[in-house]
Amino acid sequence: MIPQALITTIPFAEKNRLPLELLEAAGIAYTFNPLGRKLKEAELAGMVADVDALIAGTEPITDRVMAAAPKLKLISRVGIGLDSVDLLAAERRGIQVSYSPEAPGPAVAELTIGLMLALLRHVHVANAQLHRGEWQRYFGRRIPELTIGVIGVGRIGGRVLRRLAAFGTPRILVNDLTPKPHVADQLKLEWVDKETIYREADVISLHLPLTAQTKNMIRNAQLQQMKPDAVILNTARGGIVNEQDLARVLSAGHLAGAAIDVFEQEPYAGELAGIERCLLTAHMGSMSVDCRTKMEIEATEEVVRLFTGQPLMKRVPEEEYAVQRQGL
Amino acid sequence: MIPQALITTIPFAEKNRLPLELLEAAGIAYTFNPLGRKLKEAELAGMVADVDALIAGTEPITDRVMAAAPKLKLISRVGIGLDSVDLLAAERRGIQVSYSPEAPGPAVAELTIGLMLALLRHVHVANAQLHRGEWQRYFGRRIPELTIGVIGVGRIGGRVLRRLAAFGTPRILVNDLTPKPHVADQLKLEWVDKETIYREADVISLHLPLTAQTKNMIRNAQLQQMKPDAVILNTARGGIVNEQDLARVLSAGHLAGAAIDVFEQEPYAGELAGIERCLLTAHMGSMSVDCRTKMEIEATEEVVRLFTGQPLMKRVPEEEYAVQRQGL
Repeated sequence: MIPQALITTIPFAEKNRLPLELLEAAGIAYTFNPLGRKLKEAELAGMVADVDALIAGTEPITDRVMAAAPKLKLISRVGIGLDSVDLLAAERRGIQVSYSPEAPGPAVAELTIGLMLALLRHVHVANAQLHRGEWQRYFGRRIPELTIGVIGVGRIGGRVLRRLAAFGTPRILVNDLTPKPHVADQLKLEWVDKETIYREADVISLHLPLTAQTKNMIRNAQLQQMKPDAVILNTARGGIVNEQDLARVLSAGHLAGAAIDVFEQEPYAGELAGIERCLLTAHMGSMSVDCRTKMEIEATEEVVRLFTGQPLMKRVPEEEYAVQRQGL
Repeated sequence: MIPQALITTIPFAEKNRLPLELLEAAGIAYTFNPLGRKLKEAELAGMVADVDALIAGTEPITDRVMAAAPKLKLISRVGIGLDSVDLLAAERRGIQVSYSPEAPGPAVAELTIGLMLALLRHVHVANAQLHRGEWQRYFGRRIPELTIGVIGVGRIGGRVLRRLAAFGTPRILVNDLTPKPHVADQLKLEWVDKETIYREADVISLHLPLTAQTKNMIRNAQLQQMKPDAVILNTARGGIVNEQDLARVLSAGHLAGAAIDVFEQEPYAGELAGIERCLLTAHMGSMSVDCRTKMEIEATEEVVRLFTGQPLMKRVPEEEYAVQRQGL
């Protein structure tokens, strides 16, 4: 039997055909997501009856999807977040799960710095105005003059901090889901609680997974604690910042701006689109040609390993299962 | 007689009242530009009959203006560029000229990096689309994967280069109006001619003054030499890149994008506004609160020095006069 892979992530192999060549060389048949966008649960469940491996994006891979996929042996995530995969159902059903956690980091960190500089100088607002024929010179602020709060100092947050260092010496406050005080020691940062970041930071950037603990972590109460001219960035996962609360708070004139790359529902079409000082991008954090290609190759190599009898190299570690055992 | 200062630059003392307090403490009377925007030559000429000192923006301070200002003793520029001041006319008339060349550098460099990251990740295009309810994920490119060309490696270009270093190790090509090969030695850059930069760079950033030599330096012929997916940034002075040629080239599909902060006529209302992948800002390079305040204080202190009998500290050096003697 020829193994069947379904590639659900969009785009795939658009800039570099190597992932497809790897599958072809290993004699693995593959099909693409026929809808060309992020799949919903029922759509995916209807496509997986004969699938041995998923090369997956962020679509929901639930127990219901797995129940419809009796041959499924491997879910190989193109990317880092695992909120979309029911790891415990996979475990019960003997389906292995791999991911590519290192590859997206440099691309997400670089986009985050770009969004931060744009927010602080009102680039998006001036650009929209000039394209309408209006001219207004905005005052901005520079990174070394500010207090920067980074929540989540792992693979991506750590890279953001290292790139910030080139811009001078802001005060940097950090926090994470689990204490990592050694990070603060290394980089001369201040380890503080999240409430201190909400109250004291001029820039708040999130680099956390979406879990039961982080879902709606930033709602109206947290947003109201922030400085009136603070800016907030979410390049992590939709749902960590409550979108409705953010839209309400921005509309009421609180906060200088926000940059949101990730959404609860993607494609996004919500009320943040009506707020000019909210800078919006289309889940493009990992979308540099080099990092995206690396993610696709790493995820594909896992599928090749499985069907050529080699040990998997990128299996999701036990601590990710433990997070879900605490409830998602 | 109470000395009279005319403050033509917009904004002024908006975020920090200290410059006005300095004038008041020294017994210098001041008035503001009554039109609230960049003045034209004839407008300025009509305002200067009784003026002893100008605290000036980028409006044209020509021989005609000076002829209308018999009491003018000092032109104190808030900022670095001197293309707007006829230095030779000032010299003939015994009018001193000072400027604040160091203050804007950090703000311009930081905005330049922000615009560069936005261009490379198509942030401005995605943002415009999302605000219209469209969703498209763009591939972008990361700085360390690219060849970056910086033309002008003085106060601002040098700061851009140092900030780029945090993003990894791109190939960096540099050029300047006068050879400065020691810059390349220090920072491990390649000193090349401008044509090499036009042909080989993925990102081209300009950090030059506007002079006879740089006016229209980048026209259709130079733009056509650039890679089809190159991006170009002008945070230096309007007129170095010919705006009509840039609009035509972008409209024809050449270049991945452009970021233009400075224009031949400001406020700008030209055809670049119709091109979505052209990122436009309103001459905001120096407009961080800290740098703008520093520029205003430095320019004001010169005026105070003049009228309190202290030697000027920020006089424009002879080499700037020499540039204009070569023809502007």
